Order: sequence, then C-alpha cells, then structure tokens
Amino acid sequence: ADIAAGKAKAATCAACHGANGIAAIPTYPNLAGQNAGYLEAALKAYKAGQRTSPQAAIMKGMAMPLSDTDIKNLSAYFSSLK
Amino acid sequence: ADIAAGKAKAATCAACHGANGIAAIPTYPNLAGQNAGYLEAALKAYKAGQRTSPQAAIMKGMAMPLSDTDIKNLSAYFSSLK
Repeated sequence: ADIAAGKAKAATCAACHGANGIAAIPTYPNLAGQNAGYLEAALKAYKAGQRTSPQAAIMKGMAMPLSDTDIKNLSAYFSSLK
Repeated sequence: ADIAAGKAKAATCAACHGANGIAAIPTYPNLAGQNAGYLEAALKAYKAGQRTSPQAAIMKGMAMPLSDTDIKNLSAYFSSLK
C-alpha cells in the first residue's frame, strides 16, 4: 500500500476523523493505529451498503467513490498513525 | 458507566479483541482507546442488524444478549484502555 497516497486521499476524512486520526466527534471512531485489515473491511462494508445505521449513511457516501487501491492506501495510512 | 462491570462483561470479547483491547486478528478492530460513543453506536448497530457483512454476523450474535447498560459499561471499559 502507498501510505503517502493514502495521506493525500485522507484530506476529506480529517474533517470528522481528525488530521491525526483522532475523531473530533465522540460518536465517530478514532482511526489512528486501527488495524488496516479492519479499516479495509469497514470501508468495503460501507461501500457495499452493509452498514445501514443513520450515521452509516454519511460513510456510505464517502466510501462509494473509493477504489480498492484508495481503500488499501487510506487504511494503511490511518493504521500507521500512532 | 461502570468500568469494572464492563471489564467483567468483556471476558468474552477478549478472545478476538485481546485482553488489552488490541485485536489478535487483523480484520478485527482494536478497541483500546476507541471513542466510547462510537463503541456504543457500533454495538447497537450490530444488535439492530444494521451491519450485514459476513464478519458482522459474529458480532450480531455477541451484541444480541447485551443490555443498554452492558453496552455502556463495555464501551467505557474499552475506551479506558490505552
């Protein structure tokens, strides 16, 4: 995975998940240091519409335009944050 | 929330999420230091069947028997881990 490309892609995510991967909003998850494999699974679940809670709708919109490569790079980037 | 009660309840969770909240399996999330508000939202989403990816089925089974109090205590416990 390309962590630098993930970082560039993550500009949008920072608004809710924090520039350092620590979420500004308590009902949103911190992503820093999370398992990359889990982040990939979660992004794919949002993209596939397998998460249907009210707040999941926001993430579905975010995940829809992401390619598998974007998902891999974003996951590696956030996982790399301490 | 009662973190000690959460810790007692978390014995089952440790098998996959680690006794210290760091998941043994890369496609499962670390829970240590996660936002309690997010953990509550996620557990409720599993319990309500709002997460339908293949691996979500496991968590649905885990979340079903939990009361709102259990969910609050578990979330506070894992959030308290560093």
